[in-house]
Amino acid sequence: MLLPALREQVLHANQEIARRGLAVHTFGNASGIDRAGADGSGKEPLVAIKPSGVSYATLTAADLVLTRLDGTIIEGTLNPSSDLDTHLLLYREFPQIGGVVHTHSEFATSWAQACQPIPCLGTTHADYFHGPVPITESLTAEEVHEAYVLNTGAVIARLFRDQNLDPIAVPGVLVAGHAPFAWGKTPAAAVENADLLEYIARLAYRTLTLGAPADGLAQYVAEHHYQRKHGPKATYGQKAV
Amino acid sequence: MLLPALREQVLHANQEIARRGLAVHTFGNASGIDRAGADGSGKEPLVAIKPSGVSYATLTAADLVLTRLDGTIIEGTLNPSSDLDTHLLLYREFPQIGGVVHTHSEFATSWAQACQPIPCLGTTHADYFHGPVPITESLTAEEVHEAYVLNTGAVIARLFRDQNLDPIAVPGVLVAGHAPFAWGKTPAAAVENADLLEYIARLAYRTLTLGAPADGLAQYVAEHHYQRKHGPKATYGQKAV
Amino acid sequence: MLLPALREQVLHANQEIARRGLAVHTFGNASGIDRAGADGSGKEPLVAIKPSGVSYATLTAADLVLTRLDGTIIEGTLNPSSDLDTHLLLYREFPQIGGVVHTHSEFATSWAQACQPIPCLGTTHADYFHGPVPITESLTAEEVHEAYVLNTGAVIARLFRDQNLDPIAVPGVLVAGHAPFAWGKTPAAAVENADLLEYIARLAYRTLTLGAPADGLAQYVAEHHYQRKHGPKATYGQKAV
Amino acid sequence: MLLPALREQVLHANQEIARRGLAVHTFGNASGIDRAGADGSGKEPLVAIKPSGVSYATLTAADLVLTRLDGTIIEGTLNPSSDLDTHLLLYREFPQIGGVVHTHSEFATSWAQACQPIPCLGTTHADYFHGPVPITESLTAEEVHEAYVLNTGAVIARLFRDQNLDPIAVPGVLVAGHAPFAWGKTPAAAVENADLLEYIARLAYRTLTLGAPADGLAQYVAEHHYQRKHGPKATYGQKAV
Repeated sequence: MLLPALREQVLHANQEIARRGLAVHTFGNASGIDRAGADGSGKEPLVAIKPSGVSYATLTAADLVLTRLDGTIIEGTLNPSSDLDTHLLLYREFPQIGGVVHTHSEFATSWAQACQPIPCLGTTHADYFHGPVPITESLTAEEVHEAYVLNTGAVIARLFRDQNLDPIAVPGVLVAGHAPFAWGKTPAAAVENADLLEYIARLAYRTLTLGAPADGLAQYVAEHHYQRKHGPKATYGQKAV
Repeated sequence: MLLPALREQVLHANQEIARRGLAVHTFGNASGIDRAGADGSGKEPLVAIKPSGVSYATLTAADLVLTRLDGTIIEGTLNPSSDLDTHLLLYREFPQIGGVVHTHSEFATSWAQACQPIPCLGTTHADYFHGPVPITESLTAEEVHEAYVLNTGAVIARLFRDQNLDPIAVPGVLVAGHAPFAWGKTPAAAVENADLLEYIARLAYRTLTLGAPADGLAQYVAEHHYQRKHGPKATYGQKAV
Repeated sequence: MLLPALREQVLHANQEIARRGLAVHTFGNASGIDRAGADGSGKEPLVAIKPSGVSYATLTAADLVLTRLDGTIIEGTLNPSSDLDTHLLLYREFPQIGGVVHTHSEFATSWAQACQPIPCLGTTHADYFHGPVPITESLTAEEVHEAYVLNTGAVIARLFRDQNLDPIAVPGVLVAGHAPFAWGKTPAAAVENADLLEYIARLAYRTLTLGAPADGLAQYVAEHHYQRKHGPKATYGQKAV
Repeated sequence: MLLPALREQVLHANQEIARRGLAVHTFGNASGIDRAGADGSGKEPLVAIKPSGVSYATLTAADLVLTRLDGTIIEGTLNPSSDLDTHLLLYREFPQIGGVVHTHSEFATSWAQACQPIPCLGTTHADYFHGPVPITESLTAEEVHEAYVLNTGAVIARLFRDQNLDPIAVPGVLVAGHAPFAWGKTPAAAVENADLLEYIARLAYRTLTLGAPADGLAQYVAEHHYQRKHGPKATYGQKAV
């Protein structure tokens, strides 16, 4: 089997989706990419992704499907996640990311269904997302019929290009009428961001139903919080060894 | 004991109701039907159903009550679920179904109490229900006094006939002022649908209290999602072996 | 130690309050009464109640405090629950009841804080409460200063007398600005009713925030449901042996 | 290692934050102070605090960072919590307190994000907080840029001075747009108050979304409840031994 380390990371990310309560039934999937590829040359990056409709409880590293960035299956006897084309497009568009997670988690999905971006209402949000959690446009009927899954990725990429967003500073998105996608430098970071996005969505839901202040969190507080966690002079956590 | 396999399936479905948090106390029951019957001839289909008011924790396959479609008890010393007549009517009206589940699960019951159908607001819904989750009319005083439990089934059947709904494509319903019923080709599928109905109801509740978009999910997206999971060219999951 | 059987029932009821998630910290307490008393003569009914501020996890039958209906302590070295006088007044006023449970459970307490009775919006409610869950008047400043705990019981008793309610058919109440009290023929029934009251309150909260129908559940449905569970011709559950 | 008893208390308080579900990821931290200091003289009080970004599951007493009230680190190789300066300012301003807890717990944080104090709507609140749970002013851009963490403590202190609040009677606060801080005479009491603040916030959220009474709980009831638990003639719990 190729890329056992990537497979382990992706297996773990899928298990974490279930363990953190982000998945209902078999909704949700995680993938990861090794951009160096099996031969380390970087000529053929490979993606490992959950097979479609398989239970998290019985999933093994060997069940994962290995594909090229164009979707050609390299290893795997099971069908890949039906969301594969969205994952692949995100890897092609966002060269900085190493993992993608898709869930139908309760609060993030509800914001997606409400077709509203999540405004930055507090420092929990500001610590992880640089600005609102954006929401895509709805796909047109043509985009749906032509290539639904691929175009789900395409509307995300278009949004990030149009709004000039950095996918590392804004590590997730709501797909209108559907659910969230999150990502990160590794599969583990992608799950972490999916989980934080759910908590941010939960807090924002409570705040909005209580009566949110019209102007949200002051921009200078949001900026300060984001920078102290992610900026060049970050003071949070321990120094990497 | 007749039909041990059916009994095991129905026992498991009842246990799953409790395990998935769909039941409070002894609210809720699952049944299953063997349309071939004990002799395999199809002349006398038999239904296995939970006994009334028995705890899920101690329920055994032998406790289940076996009845004909007219309600005659064939095996069982305990009283059948007080909702038996609703289950039987559904089996008579919907020949495609093999299992029925009734719960008072939190969000689906709250929509039923609010006397509102659940609109299709996202793809999670569209993946499992072809159109809104419908809600019955209220029973009239006469229907209640005459035969309450039977007529609960009758208003469901009437709704599906009047709206020309397919019970496999719309595998559940809200009974106004009461709670949901769900069903499927097997008792296991019926529990799965009861659980998904609860999650769909939960997401729709959150979306509505956030401020749902007036027009819900575009019909072409809903249709696409339903067909990719259930249509003739479904791409979700693994090929049946 | 007197009345070991009563002590076991009351211990179990207190443990159930915690196990069912009805209590936060040491909020909440259960008591039971033996109306025959220690000598079986009925001349001196005895009440067993949780001591004040003791953790549910470490509570033993020996920790319970045994008192007369006038509050005289018969056995016990710990202080009784600070709500003792409310419990005792309920036992004096409602001779049909054998157990009382007080909690600050989330949804019932929120209705109490909102100073609203819980309308009957569905059959889950109708199965257990004959009519709305009533709410007391607020205590006057004089009632608070004179004898707060006793008068908490007194406003409950006054409400039941004024509205001519049967405490077996309406096995609980909301104390305005405070929290619920529930009761039943035994301590176990009182916990069951406290738990159902919380679930009814939860469903009603969801229904109301969704937009409840103006007229609630039709009276003839509510009546039918109540009677099929509690009436002389009840069809629910198994025949008592 | 200095002050092993303080370290154990602070370790336990941090573990309790996680066990009670008040922390998401590594949001949240507890500290404690020994005002007598390592030599018992009272000349150099020492604070033990959680290191930044370390998981609750693996935290040990030896991981805690020991600092002076001016922030000088006395023992510890890990970075202290990035909220250290807020904790220290609270210890300097409130000589009565011995422990501080900061969380991003769901409901208290949502009230903080909504920039609203939590009104006293019931006796659960009145039992623990003498008056509303106050909310700070927003920090100015200058306060943020100058010394964000220190000034977070400063706005709390200013609020308590301006409103003449007793930090023992009001053992917590909401920082606008951020999250709650709670405290108490010991680290264990601080966690208890953080947990109660979350439950009070939860009840108030439910009450407000149901429709809170315009005037909240009568002042004489609130006062009575607070005094029966904390006043000189408190009747709650067991006498201290």
